[in-house]
Amino acid sequence: MLKHRHGGDIYEVSYRIDYSANINPLGTPESVVKAAQKSILDCAHYPDVDCRALRRALAEKENMEPEQILCGNGAAELIFAMVQAEKPQRALLMAPGFAEYEQALRANGCEIRYYELKKEHGFRYQTDYKKMLTEDLDMIFLCNPNNPTGLLIPKEEMLEIFQICLEKKIRVVLDSCFIDFLEQEKEAEYTGYLDDYPNLFILKAFTKIYAMAGLRLGYGMSRDKRLLERMKNVVQPWSVSIPAQAAGVAALQETAFVHRSAKMVQEERIWLKKQLQNMNLWVCDSQANYLFFEGTEDLSEKCRKEGILIRDCSNYHGLRKGYYRIAVRTRKENEELVQVFRKILKPAERRN
Amino acid sequence: MLKHRHGGDIYEVSYRIDYSANINPLGTPESVVKAAQKSILDCAHYPDVDCRALRRALAEKENMEPEQILCGNGAAELIFAMVQAEKPQRALLMAPGFAEYEQALRANGCEIRYYELKKEHGFRYQTDYKKMLTEDLDMIFLCNPNNPTGLLIPKEEMLEIFQICLEKKIRVVLDSCFIDFLEQEKEAEYTGYLDDYPNLFILKAFTKIYAMAGLRLGYGMSRDKRLLERMKNVVQPWSVSIPAQAAGVAALQETAFVHRSAKMVQEERIWLKKQLQNMNLWVCDSQANYLFFEGTEDLSEKCRKEGILIRDCSNYHGLRKGYYRIAVRTRKENEELVQVFRKILKPAERRN
Repeated sequence: MLKHRHGGDIYEVSYRIDYSANINPLGTPESVVKAAQKSILDCAHYPDVDCRALRRALAEKENMEPEQILCGNGAAELIFAMVQAEKPQRALLMAPGFAEYEQALRANGCEIRYYELKKEHGFRYQTDYKKMLTEDLDMIFLCNPNNPTGLLIPKEEMLEIFQICLEKKIRVVLDSCFIDFLEQEKEAEYTGYLDDYPNLFILKAFTKIYAMAGLRLGYGMSRDKRLLERMKNVVQPWSVSIPAQAAGVAALQETAFVHRSAKMVQEERIWLKKQLQNMNLWVCDSQANYLFFEGTEDLSEKCRKEGILIRDCSNYHGLRKGYYRIAVRTRKENEELVQVFRKILKPAERRN
Repeated sequence: MLKHRHGGDIYEVSYRIDYSANINPLGTPESVVKAAQKSILDCAHYPDVDCRALRRALAEKENMEPEQILCGNGAAELIFAMVQAEKPQRALLMAPGFAEYEQALRANGCEIRYYELKKEHGFRYQTDYKKMLTEDLDMIFLCNPNNPTGLLIPKEEMLEIFQICLEKKIRVVLDSCFIDFLEQEKEAEYTGYLDDYPNLFILKAFTKIYAMAGLRLGYGMSRDKRLLERMKNVVQPWSVSIPAQAAGVAALQETAFVHRSAKMVQEERIWLKKQLQNMNLWVCDSQANYLFFEGTEDLSEKCRKEGILIRDCSNYHGLRKGYYRIAVRTRKENEELVQVFRKILKPAERRN
């Protein structure tokens, strides 16, 4: 079996706090838990293959037609479905970026090109990215805010990318799985552009903001209904479970919870970033619910011994040992993390 | 979106009894419901990507190594994963047979050959099937007992098929999703042959016997660990949800429930079959928890008006209108079904 390549393996090691998964620290809303638990009583039946109640609720939230929405067993299933349905020959990824784009492309024999985000630019998007949008490309993946950096692509650049890709017949997969945590969610919201760009597919997840990673629910949106049908055809009909559909419908009512979560995470991110900088660590200018930073090479291992799981990013394409990602959690937990960091990173290693 | 091609669409129509899905009429065991409900509290976390607790429990039940077992988001996900991983050029299916083999193969551009089961043989397997096992084949799917007929392939024939396929390098996918309902489960149990046939992949599901179709859990077994790794690579890492894994572990403790269910379904199948035959309907000699029969062309529509959903099999490859499949349910429900059938199938239409 494959080695666990993602966050800390909470099923293998004992730990106190998991900083390796970018989940809302407020946890799953009570209404979502209740809806999922109640739905277990219906689980003798097959799920609705068309996720109709959920897609109607999503259509209302996103101001879309239900036919423009496809639900999946987590956003990750839709990444694989996209690649399996479209079978791109050549794709462009940002490095570092979310590992599943690469895994899905590799599993389908696609040639992958990388646009390398550079430390010297603070891992920020640079306008020379657009030079790599050549006509022989079939697909690009963009994660906005990016994972693991938490950085946004400027809006005017994003729209230019859409336009170039439209002209050059390149499919744009825009992963917006973290936008609910942004201070100004609207600055990274591109659903309003789906009508202008039929080559655009926007991916979102319930996983992070509603803290329901274990239930698996994501969705994608596009004006290209035939694309959605092709994607549906490469996936089994019953991929979205009954508890996931029920939890999703309940979650969409939780607008106050979303705002409260985003506000809390924004404040904590600023506080936590400052603490890391005070330890003379280089920290990326993340806008999301996680922080990407440079530490000592043994930091992850030492944290693990203290019961703290952090995300070692050395297996991201384009990164070397010493880069890490941590979630932003509650103040109490963040204080504990900072204490552990202080203990591990003795002054000498703090580069001061 | 695709038309619902499977059983009765319980989310679209109002109904009293669903005879279109082959689910255990005793429902989900209480322990499974409780385990799934409790696990919802852990759903802020990602699921264990390796399903370790579940695979350990399965290994004990099946007398296998955990490394020889791959879990999926329902058996259906594993059918798609098998085809996506192996990319067969030519595959052989039995017709009629479960529609998802065909869908998965078509989605991957595979040429499909059909071995037609014939009414004149009572839709029974015939030994001339083996003539179709030619060297240009890459994969065969066998469902045993077959869906929708409920018939078994004789054991000596099955072993001969394994051997021929081993010699001709043909992958055998043996779908055993219904064997728990058999009177003599052992006669269709081939896990003991996995060591002899590395080309063999056996598929099983929790869906039917534990009545947990809505939770999505299936698994596959093979001696070929590299095959399982390739299959894992074409699927997202977190495909099996936390509730599915928890429910699966609990279900494997329910051995008495399985035996009670099988015994009840066997008795009811014999009774229900006799009732249909008394109405002069042709009924296939099913050994499983469902009956395949020939009725009038409007039977399904008329049943629907009476609140009974049955499976219209006219969209199975090799079948025409007038063939149906019904689940075997409890005596009380089965009596209601028979009453509805009697009302619909007036004597003149009962061919007597």
